[in-house]
Amino acid sequence: MRVPTLLSFLFLRVVAAKLEVRDGQTATLITFPATPTDLGLKQIPDDAHPFIAPGPDDQRGPCPGMNTLANHGYISRNGVATFEEIVLGSVEAYNLEINFAAFIVAGNMLMRGNPFVNKLSIGGESPLVPPLPGGIGGSATGGMSKHGGFEGDASMTRADAAIGDNADFQDILYDLDLLSLGQFGGDGPEGPNTLFNVQTMSAIKQRNLQMDQMINPEFHFTPIRAVASFTEAAFVLGIFANGTTNQSSLSTIGSFFRNQTFPPNWHRAAAPVSGLVLGGTALAIQAGVDPSIVVASHNDAQGNLVPDTPPPAPFDANLGCGFYFDLFAHMPAGLANATGVLKQNVDLLANAVRASVGGSACNQTLAPFGPPDN
Amino acid sequence: MRVPTLLSFLFLRVVAAKLEVRDGQTATLITFPATPTDLGLKQIPDDAHPFIAPGPDDQRGPCPGMNTLANHGYISRNGVATFEEIVLGSVEAYNLEINFAAFIVAGNMLMRGNPFVNKLSIGGESPLVPPLPGGIGGSATGGMSKHGGFEGDASMTRADAAIGDNADFQDILYDLDLLSLGQFGGDGPEGPNTLFNVQTMSAIKQRNLQMDQMINPEFHFTPIRAVASFTEAAFVLGIFANGTTNQSSLSTIGSFFRNQTFPPNWHRAAAPVSGLVLGGTALAIQAGVDPSIVVASHNDAQGNLVPDTPPPAPFDANLGCGFYFDLFAHMPAGLANATGVLKQNVDLLANAVRASVGGSACNQTLAPFGPPDN
Repeated sequence: MRVPTLLSFLFLRVVAAKLEVRDGQTATLITFPATPTDLGLKQIPDDAHPFIAPGPDDQRGPCPGMNTLANHGYISRNGVATFEEIVLGSVEAYNLEINFAAFIVAGNMLMRGNPFVNKLSIGGESPLVPPLPGGIGGSATGGMSKHGGFEGDASMTRADAAIGDNADFQDILYDLDLLSLGQFGGDGPEGPNTLFNVQTMSAIKQRNLQMDQMINPEFHFTPIRAVASFTEAAFVLGIFANGTTNQSSLSTIGSFFRNQTFPPNWHRAAAPVSGLVLGGTALAIQAGVDPSIVVASHNDAQGNLVPDTPPPAPFDANLGCGFYFDLFAHMPAGLANATGVLKQNVDLLANAVRASVGGSACNQTLAPFGPPDN
Repeated sequence: MRVPTLLSFLFLRVVAAKLEVRDGQTATLITFPATPTDLGLKQIPDDAHPFIAPGPDDQRGPCPGMNTLANHGYISRNGVATFEEIVLGSVEAYNLEINFAAFIVAGNMLMRGNPFVNKLSIGGESPLVPPLPGGIGGSATGGMSKHGGFEGDASMTRADAAIGDNADFQDILYDLDLLSLGQFGGDGPEGPNTLFNVQTMSAIKQRNLQMDQMINPEFHFTPIRAVASFTEAAFVLGIFANGTTNQSSLSTIGSFFRNQTFPPNWHRAAAPVSGLVLGGTALAIQAGVDPSIVVASHNDAQGNLVPDTPPPAPFDANLGCGFYFDLFAHMPAGLANATGVLKQNVDLLANAVRASVGGSACNQTLAPFGPPDN
């Protein structure tokens, strides 16, 4: 054993002085990762990232893309990860454009994670993600499975939270999705009607929305969901497609959705997939769905679908502005009054969100303004 | 402890005298069960037959109907059962007409079981089913998973034995089936295109046959399979349908195929389902498939589909006669020369087969004439 020198003692004191502790939690400064230089076609996973099924204490949730990252160790296999981990994992495995990846993870971290310790569960509540310090959040940190953030109704493969399991893959829902593929899918190497395409995704979303509105008395297609659910549908075509063919085949999508593993011989997209590209696909999918059911709306007490009360001006200008407003409405207001490391983290994360959402009609800087638990 | 009386000793000697032992196996006389009197609509399962997932040593195989019986204890949960057990289980749970049930079980017992001890595995080889005594069968008794009997190519949910797993449910194959449901399914309580019907089953079989012929170099659609595979398709409509509605809905069929459990609130058919009814449905399904691929045929060395050499006259008269011939060709010839209990059992089983197959064009009494292992 080496005898510590005076210098090392001094160094330790300097480090200790920088540690910020609140409610027994130690702050962790979040940084925006540098963009990797390697952004081309690549087979995923590499040898260092084999599939290992999650154990009973590992967190998994409603997003098959996140679950797949964890099942292959592109983020922590326990399903609790930092902002940087998830951003870089998404870039590496899916070639998601880094600013768009940062927006998704930042939004989740501010709505459903603990940005003081820089931990987000991709599933439900976890002892590894303590409640926000100072009582500014709820008594527990929900994780991505918590209903009402990006997670919401009319999912392709998860039940609405009010009436079923909103975190795990549901065979019957994917079975229903495949009926639409049978009707509208493109012909491919796996046979006729085996390729997911825009028309198929529109039919799937139309069915998701109509069915859940009918069977879920508490159905609520929030502004966040009105954007997120079509963006998720766009992921099927833009992110899960094999980069070598740009095809989202039956076996490819089944691998991600059902088995939450990368398909054999799968390659990530050949170039970074931006929010602009995904947004365009999402709009194309939305355009194929009955316009009356794609707006922010909910069931009234009689089970009739009624539009949501619009957000205040200028956020009522369009869905993008409503989405922007709704996101910050789901982040605890206490985050906006943070100090120290937490303030630095919230600023970085909120900036990452603002960079991807909003628009000229609502060009205002929002800060978190929601209740502690929302 | 009671002191045995002279009478009980005598009784034991009488019983012992009746036991017939060969190769260490004790013969069990098979009897044709009496037809239950209760043959109407009934909710299945009853409280005495809950689902229990099979353990690692339990046998399960290519037939979801059999697997479901075992998962609910309508036959032995270990998946090794007697003729009487499977016949009565099929009658009780599915309201299968008893003579048709007897034909199916008898055919399997003679081709793939041990009729000396009256044991059949609904899955693969099992230490509970010894080889036939006297070396008249192969070195092991195959069970229903063994390729080439009723089990064969172009299954709806299992891979061809030559190229994959022919015993377990394969997600991707059922996914492909659902594409046909999306195209041709009827509208029902679960949504548009959610009811399996004849047109859907025809499309499924067309796809099964075309795909397997293309991807399986050893593809062989034997006379047995040419009948059995369409009869299996008829089961989807005639046996798995909920007896209260006669509908084979998406969730109902998924429950049987994927989870191998009875669906919630499921009722067996309201009246016994006979081979005549199922045969009619099978023919209707077959009529919707390209006629050139429904005949007994196989791939040649170049991967071209060529018709099988017809069986000898009079069994070349029609597919029913060819089926009859092919069944007995897959039963070890040694069974035809049996003595004692084995002869009694073989006679009973062969009669049960003959009662359901053949036809006026080939009105001959066949006995098992196949090689020991076929």
